[in-house]
Formats: sequence, structure tokens, C-alpha cells
Amino acid sequence: MEFKAKLINIREARWFSNLTTTIIIIYSSILGLKTMMEVDGNLIIIMHIMDYFVTIYFLIEIAIKMAAEEKTSDFFKSGWNIFDFVIVIITLIPLENTTMAAVARLLRIFRVLRLITARPGLKRIIDMLMGAIPSIVDIVILMFIIFYIYAILGNFLFAGVESGLWENFLIAMLTLFRILTFEDWTDVMYEGMEVHPWSWIYFVSFVIIAAFVFFNLFIAVIIGEMEKLRDEDDTEHEEEMEKLDTILAKMDELKEEIAELKSKS
Amino acid sequence: MEFKAKLINIREARWFSNLTTTIIIIYSSILGLKTMMEVDGNLIIIMHIMDYFVTIYFLIEIAIKMAAEEKTSDFFKSGWNIFDFVIVIITLIPLENTTMAAVARLLRIFRVLRLITARPGLKRIIDMLMGAIPSIVDIVILMFIIFYIYAILGNFLFAGVESGLWENFLIAMLTLFRILTFEDWTDVMYEGMEVHPWSWIYFVSFVIIAAFVFFNLFIAVIIGEMEKLRDEDDTEHEEEMEKLDTILAKMDELKEEIAELKSKS
Amino acid sequence: MEFKAKLINIREARWFSNLTTTIIIIYSSILGLKTMMEVDGNLIIIMHIMDYFVTIYFLIEIAIKMAAEEKTSDFFKSGWNIFDFVIVIITLIPLENTTMAAVARLLRIFRVLRLITARPGLKRIIDMLMGAIPSIVDIVILMFIIFYIYAILGNFLFAGVESGLWENFLIAMLTLFRILTFEDWTDVMYEGMEVHPWSWIYFVSFVIIAAFVFFNLFIAVIIGEMEKLRDEDDTEHEEEMEKLDTILAKMDELKEEIAELKSKS
Amino acid sequence: MEFKAKLINIREARWFSNLTTTIIIIYSSILGLKTMMEVDGNLIIIMHIMDYFVTIYFLIEIAIKMAAEEKTSDFFKSGWNIFDFVIVIITLIPLENTTMAAVARLLRIFRVLRLITARPGLKRIIDMLMGAIPSIVDIVILMFIIFYIYAILGNFLFAGVESGLWENFLIAMLTLFRILTFEDWTDVMYEGMEVHPWSWIYFVSFVIIAAFVFFNLFIAVIIGEMEKLRDEDDTEHEEEMEKLDTILAKMDELKEEIAELKSKS
Repeated sequence: MEFKAKLINIREARWFSNLTTTIIIIYSSILGLKTMMEVDGNLIIIMHIMDYFVTIYFLIEIAIKMAAEEKTSDFFKSGWNIFDFVIVIITLIPLENTTMAAVARLLRIFRVLRLITARPGLKRIIDMLMGAIPSIVDIVILMFIIFYIYAILGNFLFAGVESGLWENFLIAMLTLFRILTFEDWTDVMYEGMEVHPWSWIYFVSFVIIAAFVFFNLFIAVIIGEMEKLRDEDDTEHEEEMEKLDTILAKMDELKEEIAELKSKS
Repeated sequence: MEFKAKLINIREARWFSNLTTTIIIIYSSILGLKTMMEVDGNLIIIMHIMDYFVTIYFLIEIAIKMAAEEKTSDFFKSGWNIFDFVIVIITLIPLENTTMAAVARLLRIFRVLRLITARPGLKRIIDMLMGAIPSIVDIVILMFIIFYIYAILGNFLFAGVESGLWENFLIAMLTLFRILTFEDWTDVMYEGMEVHPWSWIYFVSFVIIAAFVFFNLFIAVIIGEMEKLRDEDDTEHEEEMEKLDTILAKMDELKEEIAELKSKS
Repeated sequence: MEFKAKLINIREARWFSNLTTTIIIIYSSILGLKTMMEVDGNLIIIMHIMDYFVTIYFLIEIAIKMAAEEKTSDFFKSGWNIFDFVIVIITLIPLENTTMAAVARLLRIFRVLRLITARPGLKRIIDMLMGAIPSIVDIVILMFIIFYIYAILGNFLFAGVESGLWENFLIAMLTLFRILTFEDWTDVMYEGMEVHPWSWIYFVSFVIIAAFVFFNLFIAVIIGEMEKLRDEDDTEHEEEMEKLDTILAKMDELKEEIAELKSKS
Repeated sequence: MEFKAKLINIREARWFSNLTTTIIIIYSSILGLKTMMEVDGNLIIIMHIMDYFVTIYFLIEIAIKMAAEEKTSDFFKSGWNIFDFVIVIITLIPLENTTMAAVARLLRIFRVLRLITARPGLKRIIDMLMGAIPSIVDIVILMFIIFYIYAILGNFLFAGVESGLWENFLIAMLTLFRILTFEDWTDVMYEGMEVHPWSWIYFVSFVIIAAFVFFNLFIAVIIGEMEKLRDEDDTEHEEEMEKLDTILAKMDELKEEIAELKSKS
């Protein structure tokens, strides 16, 4: 077990996670810079060496993490470990000389996602973001119903306009999403008003309803978080109530004893 | 009453509401997809069958819900039941072969609204949204006053501009709503500045005032919700105060008894 | 004083404020509708009669309010009364047949502002909005400093561009305000990048800094309001602490009496 | 030390900071106005005199502040003092007649930043803004990862489009920042959809993910501030718990004494 203890030390070491972070950042920066200059023969060779080095480093890193576990299968019990594993494996698939070479090269950009597992703060934010999803799922469904009705209605009213923004259901959904972001929504409206002069009602009502629902989504999440805080406050309240009850009980004991005293004297 | 008990069981059953949800989603999806492909004879027949099936299913569903009530008139005591009833009835009106056939087909999209009654979570959100309306009614009136003054003023100042964005009171209101969403508002401003070079004051002041009022509307609702939370906290405070008062009263009793003891001894 | 009591009754009566509200709304609506139709001889006469009627009603209303005060000068102690008075007086100035006739007609739209004094809820919101101003005055100054530096810098860098958006200090301020609302800001940036390729730093930094300051302005106001709520909570805490202190004091008294008892027995 | 006490008095005096504020505002206003009019010989002379005057005033002011310190080196212990010092020194560098004259003139606009040190309220806001940075650093990194992946992907997918918005990694980052502000993002999308019809998934997903992360950033900061408030509430809770414990302890003492009494009698 001597050797396993050493591996655990390495895995937990600050320099190890910092080294991984540094390698990811350098590698990602070079991937980014490559798009900004002429790629000549030398650069291609350097890139290839980089690539092999990072692939091997990642393999060693993940091997250390696996070997440091009690049982290798324990490694796959953590979602983040599986996440790491998939990213490493995906870039191992030998697609380089096939027709999917471009896709293979592209997949490598996801290596930057390993930054998340290297920084605990980021892991926590991602967990928090995931935790916020259930509380908004109903509002998303409501949003979908609103989008659905307006999309069918929009397709019915404006299917023939020249811009083709209401051509079919899917495109109408996209157009509504655009209106939700207020992006040139008046152009869409003025075009609609040429067909049906009163269609400003359609657009203004959609903007107001969608914004109102969003606005309340926002409030709901804030209030939800505040209620969580309040629940913690509640445990404080319970603590106090418990102490007060103890005092009351002791009071009654005291009274009894005094009553006893009185009866004696 | 044997039969009524069975109906109540069905009405409350999870599979029943899930079945309704599934049927609504499938039906709505097909309505949406229809806009994306060539509609040939076969599809029309399928759609017709679908339509009849959903209409009949909805009728049976609502009949079950009605029959499950003590008295049928109880059914109409719930706002959500009336809502369901109206949606079902509206699509029963035989307009298919009249000149309003298009409208009849359109009305069917509102069937997706029945998703709201099928999911309790959505009902709650709608109730919450309705509950938020009274607290913003005064801000809406204030917003209207601001819009009113700026609309009349804008119509007075820019009635003659080529784009016709200030042609009359209603159009000026629409233009102001557009400015509120920041949608190409500078185009409107630059056009106005050609007529009156100092009219940027009009636009910038409107943007700032309207944004400020909105901003405060937002704050007001958040603070309002927080005060509701605080009021619940207040009941905790009252509980504690009550207990403390009991302790004080008991203390006085104790004191009296000891005084009695003292006088005896 | 019999007569004064009657006046006070009228002033406080619900029907009186409702009457005022109704008259303002009808009058304002007609002012708005006038811009939407051909104005012929009959309408002009109706408008004139309306105008006289509203002017006289307002005069009577304000006379009642003045006469209902102990001393007439008390009337001017309330800011809202002065506000009402100024709006009524301004539309009394006989400008109709002078060259300022248009301005005179325009001033009448401010009569809609009297809606605010007629509805207590609106008065409260305005008071709240005014109350929020001091807490943001420093952020406004900060915003101004940022605008100032970027305006001078922008004028220095882009004074020569064709669109003239940076021609002088004031126009540059207006352009920056436009960028703050994200209104076609990239058009301004791309034009700037033609002169100085690196000027995207200027624009992106302005957007980030200005948005960050705004974002914090928002947070600051929310937190400020929450602290006000918390201070109220503090009085609850003080109440509890006071009661606890009373209990402690009584406890000491009890102890003393028991000590006395002990010494006696 | 008589003289030093006088200097300290001046430094702390209200009129001194007001004088500095006034001089900065007048000077800044003239710098701004200069861009709005023809600059003739007289104005240049006035500006030169102004410039010399302000430079000398700032030197005297900073000399007073330095001399008022116990030791001159103490002056540099405050970050704000160093900030003042650098601004004053920078405008002293004699660049006027060199090729960098324009830059020298430009640097003078930063004198308006001295307004921050002259107003304590502004200093506090800046400190607060700086304090908010650590709590958002992880979200900024997350944002960067999202931008990075989408930038490389965008460059891969749309490098060839006519507008050149995805030409290289840096430009793609700028384009994504533009999409984040919703600025004409549909134009970018429609251009992309001409190359890859399904690329609306790329844009809509980016908008939703980026907006969702931002949205949560906002919530996180508000909740963070609320937790700070709650921690203060906790000290109140602790105070109460302490008092309750004292009461309990005293209760036990009382009980013991009564027990003693009982055994005696």
C-alpha cells in the first residue's frame, strides 16, 4: 500500500492540480492562436507534439487518479470523474486520418472543460446552477405554452410575409425567441402590421406577457433562495423555543418544590 | 354511490392526468408539425381522426369530472374547471364548413392551455402571477401617465417626420413602448433631432424616467415579497414573546408563594 | 364654522376624488383622441366647452380645498397642494390668442398629472421614488466620471469619423448613453475600429465597466431596502432582550428572598 | 509642531475638499467645452493659464497632505494617496513640445478621477465594487470557458462567412460578446444559417446558456449579500441564547437553594 499512499498524495497535491490547470490553459491558448495566423509546416509539427504530450499527460493523470482509489471501479462513482474520463477518451479515438479528422480536431477544444474539475470553486457553481434547474422547470413549461400559442397564431397570421419569419412552426418559434430578446422586434412588427394593421396587439401582448413571466421567474428564484435562508433561521428559532420550554419545565419543578416546602412548614 | 366513488378515483388518479397530458402534447405537436410540411389527402384524414378523438376524449374527461362532483353545479365553482369547460366547448362549435372554418381550426391551439390544469405546479405559478398584479397596478398607472404625457408631447413635436412614428396618439404610444425596449430608439431620436436639434432631451429623459420607474417597480415587488416572509418571521417572534410572558407570569406566582412562605415561617 | 366643516367633508369624500379622477381621464382621453381624427368646426367648439368646464371645475375644487383649511396659507404647506395649484394656474394664463397659443394648448396635457394627487397609492409611489434618489446620487456621480473620461477620450480618438458620433463632448456623451443601452453599439464600434483597429478595447471596456457599475447600483438599492427591514427586526430583538432582562432581574429578587428565608429558618 | 497642526486642520477642513472639488469640476467642464467650439488664440492662452494654475494647486494640495503626515513616507501607506500622487505626477511630465503632446493633453482628463478622493461617498462605492470582485471571479472564469468553446466552434463553423465576424479566435470572441448584449445577434445568426441551416442551435444555445449563467451570477451576489446580513442577525441570536443560558444557570442555583431549604426545615 506504500505505493498507493504516494499516489493519493500526488492526487491531492496542490502542485498537481496547478500543473494540470497550467497545461490546459497553455494548450487551449495555442489552439486559439492557431486560428489567428498562417499555419506553416513547423507549426503543424509543434502542434502535433503538443497534442501527443497533452494526450499522454491526461492519460497519466487519469491513471494516477484511478490507481489511487481503493478499487478502480470506485473511480466511476463520482460524476466529475466520469466527466473527465469521457473527455480524455474521446480525444483518443484515432480519427486523424479518416474523413472525420476535422471533427476529431474540434473535439479537442472540450479539453478546456477539464478546467472545471481542476478548480473546486467552479465545480460548486456548476452544482449550484444544476440545483436551480428544478425550481424553474414549471416556468419553462409555461414559457413553452406561451411560445406555442403565439407561434401557431403567428404562423396563421403572417405565414405569407416576404421575410419568411413565420414560414412554419419552428421558424416562428425562433422569431418569437428573437422578439423575447427585443432584437429588432419592431421590424418584425411593422412587417406584420402591413398585412394586419391591428397586429401590433399580437406583438405588444407577447412582449408584455413574456417579459412579465420572466420577471416573475426572476423574483421566484430570489424568493426561493431567501426562503432557504429563512429555514436556517427557523432552526435558530427552534433552538430558542427549546430553551424556553426547558426554562418553563424547570419553573414548574421549582413551584412544586416550593409547594412541598409550604406543606412541610 | 358506488359508481361515483369510482369516478372520483379515476379523477384523482395519476395515470388519468398523465394520459391527458400526453394526449395534449401529441395533439399539439402534430398541429405544430402540420405547418412544416406539405399537407396531402392522407394527412388531412389523419388530422380529422385525431381531431375527433381528442374532442371525444376531452368530452369524456370533463363528463367524468362533472359526474364525480356531489352536485353537477359544484363543478362550476372552481375557476379552473370553468376554464377547462370553455376550452372544450369552444372547439365543439360546428364552424368547420362555414366561412369561419379557419378561425375554428385556430381555436384548437388553445387546447394546449389545458396543460396548465393538468399540472398542479403550473396552476400554482399562474395563481402567483395573478397575485402579483395588485401590487403593480399603481406603477402601471404611473407608467401610463408618463406614456400619456410623452405621447402627446411627441405627437406635438414630431408629427411631421417622414417615418410617421408620431402620426397620432396611438402610434406615438407604440413608438414609446418601442423606445422602452431600447429597440432602435436612437434611429427615432436622430430623426427627431433633425426637426428639433434639442429633442435628445425628450428621448434621453424618457429613457431615464421610464427605466427608473421600472427599476423601482422591480425593487418594490422584491421588497413586498420579503415583507411577506418577514411577517411570517413575526409570528415566530410572537410565539417567543408569548412564552416569555408565560415565564414572567410564573415568576410572579413563584414570588408570591415564597412571600407566603416567608410570612408563615 | 358650520360651512367649513361641510367643505372638509366634501374634500375628504370618496365621491369627490372619484369625480376628479373621472373628469381628468375623460378630458385626457379626448385630448389624445383629438390627434387621431380630422378636427372640424364642431369638435373645436366641443373642445372649447370641455376646456372651460375643466378649468372651472379645477378652480372650484382648489377653492374648496383652500377654504377647508384653518388658514388659507396652510394650504401651501403641503408640496402636493402646491403641485396642484401650479398645474391649475398655468392653464389659466391667457395665451390662447397670442403667438404662444400652441404652447398653451400643450401645457394642458400636464393636467393628467393631477391623477397622482387624486390617488393616494400613486402619491406613495412618487414619495418612494424620491426617497430612493439620495441612495443613488453617488453612483450617478461615479457614472458621470466614467462618461466624462470616455467622452473626452472618444472625442480624441474618433472625432473624425464620418457618422459624426464623436464630433464634440456633448454628442460623445449622447453616443455613450446609446452604447449603455446596447443600442446598435457594435455599429459605433466597427466604425471606430476602422480608424483605430484596437479601439474595441475602448468599447468593450466601457460596456463592461458601465454595466458592472449599474449592476452594483441595483444590488446596493436592494440591500439598502433589506437593511431597513432588518432594522425593524432589530426592534423585535430589543423587545425580547428587554423581557429577558426583566426575567433575570426577577430571578435575582427571588434568589434574595430565598436567601432571606434561609437565614430566617 | 504648531505648523503641522495647522496643516492637519487645513487637510481635514470641509472648505478645502470643497475647493478642490470645485476646481476639478470647473477645469473638467472647460476641457469638455473646448471640444465644442473653435479654438482661437485667446482661448489657448486662457487654457494654458488654467492648466498652470490647476497643476500648481494640485502640487500645493498634495504638499500640504504630505507635510501634514507624521512622516512623509506615511503618506504613501494609503492606496488613495498613491492614486492622487500618480495623477498629479503624470501631468507634470514635460511632454508639451515633444511628439507626445497630444497624449500629454489627453492624460489631463484623468484629473477628473480626483473627484473620487475628494468625496468619501464615492471612495466607499469604489471599495464596495472592488469587494464584489472576488465573489464573481469564478463565474467570470466559467463565462470565459463558455466563450472559449463557442469561439473555437464558431470559428470552425463560420470562418468563411462574408462579414468576417468569425475570421479568427479573437474576432469570434468579440462577436460572442456582441451576441451576449443581444446587439443585432439575429443578423449574425441568419448569416450563419445560410452556411449551416441548423446553426440556430449554436446561437440559441449560446444565448440561453450565457443568459442563464449571468442570471445566476446576479442571484449569487444578492444571496451573498443577504447572507452577510443574516450573519449579523446571528450575533443577535447568540446574544439571546447567552441570556437564556444565564437564566437556566440561575434557575439551577435557585433549585439548589430551595433543596437546601427543604433539607433544613
